[in-house]
Amino acid sequence: MSRMIILTEADLRSVVALDAEAVACVEDAFRALATKAVAMPPILRLDIPEHRGEVDVKTAYVPGLDGFAIKISPGFFGNPDIGLPSTNGMMVLLSAKTGLVQALLLDNGYLTDVRTAAAGAVAAKHLSRQDSRVAAIFGAGMQARQQLQALRLVRPIREARIWARDAAKAKKVAADLTVALGIPVVATADPQVAVAGADIVVTTTPSETPILKAAWLEPGQHVTAMGSDAAHKNEIEPAVIAKADLYVADSLSQTRRLGELHHAIKAGLVPPDAAFAELGRIVAGLEQGRSDENQIIIADLTGTGIQDTAIATLAFARAGSAGAGAPFES
Amino acid sequence: MSRMIILTEADLRSVVALDAEAVACVEDAFRALATKAVAMPPILRLDIPEHRGEVDVKTAYVPGLDGFAIKISPGFFGNPDIGLPSTNGMMVLLSAKTGLVQALLLDNGYLTDVRTAAAGAVAAKHLSRQDSRVAAIFGAGMQARQQLQALRLVRPIREARIWARDAAKAKKVAADLTVALGIPVVATADPQVAVAGADIVVTTTPSETPILKAAWLEPGQHVTAMGSDAAHKNEIEPAVIAKADLYVADSLSQTRRLGELHHAIKAGLVPPDAAFAELGRIVAGLEQGRSDENQIIIADLTGTGIQDTAIATLAFARAGSAGAGAPFES
Repeated sequence: MSRMIILTEADLRSVVALDAEAVACVEDAFRALATKAVAMPPILRLDIPEHRGEVDVKTAYVPGLDGFAIKISPGFFGNPDIGLPSTNGMMVLLSAKTGLVQALLLDNGYLTDVRTAAAGAVAAKHLSRQDSRVAAIFGAGMQARQQLQALRLVRPIREARIWARDAAKAKKVAADLTVALGIPVVATADPQVAVAGADIVVTTTPSETPILKAAWLEPGQHVTAMGSDAAHKNEIEPAVIAKADLYVADSLSQTRRLGELHHAIKAGLVPPDAAFAELGRIVAGLEQGRSDENQIIIADLTGTGIQDTAIATLAFARAGSAGAGAPFES
Repeated sequence: MSRMIILTEADLRSVVALDAEAVACVEDAFRALATKAVAMPPILRLDIPEHRGEVDVKTAYVPGLDGFAIKISPGFFGNPDIGLPSTNGMMVLLSAKTGLVQALLLDNGYLTDVRTAAAGAVAAKHLSRQDSRVAAIFGAGMQARQQLQALRLVRPIREARIWARDAAKAKKVAADLTVALGIPVVATADPQVAVAGADIVVTTTPSETPILKAAWLEPGQHVTAMGSDAAHKNEIEPAVIAKADLYVADSLSQTRRLGELHHAIKAGLVPPDAAFAELGRIVAGLEQGRSDENQIIIADLTGTGIQDTAIATLAFARAGSAGAGAPFES
């Protein structure tokens, strides 16, 4: 007989929130990626074009952690037409010593939302100006909301602008966040206007054509592009990367294939094997993050299995302490 | 709220057996691989050498099937020292239309055993002589037992020999199978003796150095090598492939990287891009299988995600009819 714990989305929401500890957990994961013998194989991806579906499977093993997560992330973009969310998913937490399943985390993507937003906070903490007060967010989905919340955990954000292709959605998100965060959040019809004077720009869209233009960028700005997790997605003009004083990847081997960097390479603006900083090396102090107030810095976040293992490990430990979840014997 | 069915190993054993229907199910899967727009990405593999652990994740989508499986197969080779099986694992069955999880198949590797043995039967059905009566099996694990059982579903096997590195285990398997199958099964101390006069040879070991030698092969023999599912494993001498009249891969893109073919390429006996038959194309009648009684034929089976999707779909349908499993709302 083997025994595992089944944690539902409600269980997981009760034990893990997008807070300073979640950010610290993901920051530790990036540090481990740079300093430990982490094993993080390339993402497994399955496409089902006839149903506008795609599935990513990610995993990573961090020496010293008792377990490792295998995350299954489906995105089916026809789902909203039948009243279902387009993304969902789950994680399986396995023992790193025996391979036995310790827990099934039926999070419907909740933990992914948290660890993705937390990575945005980690990037802003190490790459944006400490006095960053104005944020511009592109997109009106869950990550638009969460990335702004996450920035507030690390920077004194006082004002935010939301731009989205669908202006009505942008207005709704802006109104909701104004109430939730207690700061003015306004919907902006022109992305260039949203960027003007912003200290931090976060792009969270699934766009396949660039929205953010290089010409709009101002000295001292930090940009986190986190919408692209597949080769066909592209939120920022390749010239943005050429123009930046510092470009930082979550995983260079991934951003060369899937991230914004991939498009800059394709456009011939960056050599395919050009060396760039990685977020984990900056967190670990092995490379320099922001070194002056005027740098334009780009963080290219494609999402890594190590974030999943980190957040799943945190959730499992917290659930254990709280007695959350249903044991299942099989 | 979403609803899934959780099926335990006991549930799955009650609805799926290694029988003619399981063989037909896997045969259909191979046919689909050759005739439909199947999506089958490369295997995701994570190694955890400090715990002698490895995990494979496989998946495949078959147009027309309602669901697709994502299979997680851990192998932790220190487990027997602490009284645990070295391999276990589970499958997640997702809807091909919405990506929602339909079922968790907590099979501890049972369905993998069935679909793997069934593939051996499919290979023998299309590639061995119809009058094959004598089988030689290398190995003394679960697949040694199941491959022999599977052969009996497609060929009139009257006698079998078992060779394994551990002679005591070979004797135990031989004794068990003699009772279970009602035919003489003898343990043989010398693998060459086991092969002499055999009609079908099945290698099921995790060996990293070749056991089966080309010089031993006789006209008319069929060999299925199914032990190698990773680049470092190697059961048959590369010269076996050069000597064979017909070499058949389950998936040529996989056997070039992971299978016995990989070692023949490395040894310089086969060009890296040499074209070979695939089992699915033979099943579908697009290529010729055995064309005469004297051919020596090698089937190189590395295991494919399409087999997992096929057996998971069968198990889910049967469980539905039988009312097996526990619904879980989350």
